This record gives sequence, C-alpha cells and structure tokens, in this order.
Amino acid sequence: MTEWNDPIPPTIEWCGDFVRMIDQRRLPGELVFLDARSVDELCDAIATLAVRGAPALGVAGVMGVALAVRRGDDVRAAAASIEATRPTAVNLARGARRALASADPVALAARIAAEDIERNRRLGAHGAALLPPAARVLTHCNAGALACAGFGTALGVIRSADVAHVWVDETRPVLQGARLTAWELQRLGIAATVIPDVLAGSLLAEGSVDCVVVGADRIAANGDVANKVGTYPLAVLARHHGVPFYVAAPTSTIDDDCPTGADIPIEHRDPAEVAEIAGHHLIPAGMEVENRAFDVTPAALVTALITEDGVK
Amino acid sequence: MTEWNDPIPPTIEWCGDFVRMIDQRRLPGELVFLDARSVDELCDAIATLAVRGAPALGVAGVMGVALAVRRGDDVRAAAASIEATRPTAVNLARGARRALASADPVALAARIAAEDIERNRRLGAHGAALLPPAARVLTHCNAGALACAGFGTALGVIRSADVAHVWVDETRPVLQGARLTAWELQRLGIAATVIPDVLAGSLLAEGSVDCVVVGADRIAANGDVANKVGTYPLAVLARHHGVPFYVAAPTSTIDDDCPTGADIPIEHRDPAEVAEIAGHHLIPAGMEVENRAFDVTPAALVTALITEDGVK
Repeated sequence: MTEWNDPIPPTIEWCGDFVRMIDQRRLPGELVFLDARSVDELCDAIATLAVRGAPALGVAGVMGVALAVRRGDDVRAAAASIEATRPTAVNLARGARRALASADPVALAARIAAEDIERNRRLGAHGAALLPPAARVLTHCNAGALACAGFGTALGVIRSADVAHVWVDETRPVLQGARLTAWELQRLGIAATVIPDVLAGSLLAEGSVDCVVVGADRIAANGDVANKVGTYPLAVLARHHGVPFYVAAPTSTIDDDCPTGADIPIEHRDPAEVAEIAGHHLIPAGMEVENRAFDVTPAALVTALITEDGVK
Repeated sequence: MTEWNDPIPPTIEWCGDFVRMIDQRRLPGELVFLDARSVDELCDAIATLAVRGAPALGVAGVMGVALAVRRGDDVRAAAASIEATRPTAVNLARGARRALASADPVALAARIAAEDIERNRRLGAHGAALLPPAARVLTHCNAGALACAGFGTALGVIRSADVAHVWVDETRPVLQGARLTAWELQRLGIAATVIPDVLAGSLLAEGSVDCVVVGADRIAANGDVANKVGTYPLAVLARHHGVPFYVAAPTSTIDDDCPTGADIPIEHRDPAEVAEIAGHHLIPAGMEVENRAFDVTPAALVTALITEDGVK
C-alpha cells in the first residue's frame, strides 16, 4: 500500500487475501469497514450497496476474481456470479473479465485501485477546465471517491475545480446524495447544500446553478448515458434553462456493444427501498411501488463527456 | 351534517364549537381525528400539516374565525394569526377574511365544507371531459379529498374520469403522495403505483403517461401556478414530451393581487423535514439543507386550468 493522504479513506482495498471496503450502508452515521473473504461475501456487499458506483464496481470485479484465485475456487463461475449481481454498470462485468484474462489476477487486484485513482485525477483535471470560476454546481447521486477506489469522477471534477458551492440532490430512494456525497463534501471542506431532488427545477429557474455534473453507470456507443434515476429529468431541465450538463466517467464506462441507450439493461430493485426508511413504512400496505435504479439520458442532452483522456 | 357516503371520511368538519380534522400526519398508518377548540390549536394543526391543501386551508380559515366568535375572542387578531400560519396558499387568508366580512361566521362555517365539496364535484366533471379513455395519469403531492373538505381537485378529476392507472409521485420531503394520495386511491379502488419523484422522467420518456394533473396553492393573475415543489420540473418534462399538463383548482385559488408567479411568497420550511424521517437522520450532522414547500410553474407550461366554472 502506498501512503494514503486523502480526507476520505480508501473505498475498496486489496488486502492480500481479502477485500476491505467502506460499508456505505452505514454512512453517514458511522464509518465502518467490511471485509469480504469470498466471492459470495463480495457479491452480497455489491447487491446490498455496501459498495456501489460504476468505477468501484469495476475494481470489485477484478478483486472478486482474485479472491477466487487465492481460495482455489472456480474462477469462471466466480466471474459469472459477480457479473450477474448488478446488470447496469458495465464496469463490474468488465473488471471480472479483465481479471479472468489476466496472467496474474492477484497482482492485477493489488494495483487496480491505484490505477482507478490515477485515472480519476486526470479526469478531474480535464473537467475542471470546463467550469467557470467560483462555479455553483449541481450533482446527483454519488459519483465521488465512494463510487470509485478514490478521488471520484463528478466529485473529482468538483474537487479539482474552483467551485463556490455544490447543490446535492438527496437522490431518492437510496439517498446516496444526502448520505454519501454530503459526507464526502463535508470531509473535503467544500460548501454544499442538500436538496430534495424536486428542488433542482427551482434552482435552475432562478439562475443558482452554473452547471450540472453527474457520473455514469454505462454509456452506449452513440453516447446515451445510463445513470442513477433522476439524471434524465435533470438533463431535460438543464437544457430548458441553457445550463451545461456534463457527464464525468472513465472510458471503461463506454460500452461499444450497446449501440444505444435502449440496449442498456435497467436494474429494477426491491420496492422496499421506496416504501420504507430505517424500518419505518412510508406507504399504505399493499400499495404497488415501481423502483428502477437508473434512467437513460439521450446523448443530445449531454453537453460534454469528461473522461481521463479528455473532454468529448 | 348531511349523510356521508364517500370512502374517504370528511377531512375537516365544523362540529358546533370545535373543528374536527383527519390528522394527516398519522396517515397512512392510522386514521385518527384531531379536534381544535381554539384558534391556537387550529393554527398548530395547520403549521404541522395535520391539515393541509389549499381548499382545505380555505375551509380552515373560515372555521378558525368561527371558533373565535364562539369563544368570544378578538376575531381580527384570530384572522391575522390564521393568515400568518402559512404564506403560500391564498385560500387560507381568503377564508379568514370571508368569515370576518360575514354577518354570521358560525353559520358560514357550518356550510363551508359542503360548498367546497360541491365545487370540487363540478370541477371534476369539467376535468374528466379532457382525459382520454383508460387514461394513465401522473399526479404530484396530494390534491385529493384530504386537500379539501372532500372529493378533491386533481384527484376529483381522476375519480370523475375513465382512468386506467395513476402514477403517484411520492413527493419528497413530506411524502404527501406516498402517504395521502396512495391512501385515497386505495380507498377509492383506483389502480395506482407509487414512484420516487425522480422516476417521472423515465415514465414520460417511455410513453407510459397520457397526462399530468396537479392541484395549485396559488395562481397569479397571469396564470403562473405555485404548487408543491416538484410541480415545475414535471411541467418542463411534460412539455418536453408533448404530454398535456393540467392544473385543477377552484377559482378561489386565483389571486388577482399577484400579477405574476414572482409575486407569490414561497414558504421555506424546517430543514428537518428533509434531514430526518421518523427520527432517523438521513444526512451528516451540520450539513446545510434547503427546504422550500412550493415552486412556480409559468402559465406557458400549463395546458389548461380546470376550475368549477369550466376549463380555461
């Protein structure tokens, strides 16, 4: 391990024969680490959102195969079960396949986090050049250090730029904005305000937002972007108000096997994520609930895609 | 009292020397009634959202002055304190002033609820004529029987029309959609699905919504509409997708003293409504939160205004 001098601890680390992760289900109340010693334990952490975010899932995909190698498990079966855990972020499947194809998956696991962080730093510098001085930025969900091995994509741009204020969509139903992005920005000392997702329209209408910056879970070959549900309405609102809408994502998020956004599978999750908070029922018993984790923003609504290789 | 034969009990009733209300803070878990015997008790019920919704607040404004008359309190002071309780819905102040100007505020209080319900039934019939057969309608917040003395405005249109399905925005932060609109539609036997507010964009994009119908808290002279925060983004999305966006409100919601939406005061509420649910903290301690109860939709985005006097 290289020395860690970031206000946010490592999201996911290879520890020789286990994977250590921040348990993001416990944030912002408690900073607790979770160790996965088998592929099953890692898949459970992924399915329950203890670890989430497309670049972090890419790292988890590599480390899961390395765990199987260390334990002498069937690596192809391990890769298949990792890939099946969450369908939308292409990075997860891609990480597992990359490790499978590697001569030494364990050595790859040992360097993959540093590789991710270095890429995010380059991405952040490219994005920072797009923002005006003292920018007032609106973001959705969490595309920060917690969504990666570290540093962040959308939040990587924000921490690299001259940002005066961040509006943080709380991001129903799982509240990654209110819980995770707010926690990161507080640790980084960046001024920020949490808002209900429904308030973004008012802020754009009154001119309080200079640009919107979000991450991506998968980008189709034509540039359509799958990201956390609520991203698409923001893109429509940004266009309506003539405000730039930026997507920040490593090139590994681009899936040339998906011609358009319509080809990206959208994960449906447990209705209980909408119907309950901390065991408290919000909705009448027996009421139907629809819970999709992602939506698709057409390429035409994306002002620019910010990657580690530059702005597209 | 006339006989009550609606699946939803009376939201607010004049009971001779007290006001009986459904305590909407306890829904959908429990159907409990709350009695206010003084203006202070009524103002507390209004401030804490035990009773809410523009037409219901209009009725409460009348009944509050009648309570002061029955108790021999200073009726002008009573009207002033009622008006100050919530600033955005013009109906509250208007109800109090109407009672002040009345020769017999107690007699007015005894008939005001029936007057509201009769008006909503006419509004509903006018609106129903606009909807296609087997309509799939999206609504926001609660503009139902619980927002009125009974029957509802936006939900009055829905229950008067041939509606196949209702998409119910949960309506963060106070969740009036998830808690109240879902409860009403369940009692009425109308098929409905609760969604996180952020999912409306996906549903509009895939063609699952035939029209949006919402209520209003105040309408400016130029037709701009103040309604629950989140209404404006829906109006922008509906326009983007060529889907009709209807506002259903009694003519008493129109305020000719407000030339445009910019003149409508927008209530800021306690950040705790966003930061906590049922005592559970969602956001890091010390984090700033912005909580505005309403937003303004420009008249140009409103396809039609549905009132008791017809469609405008």
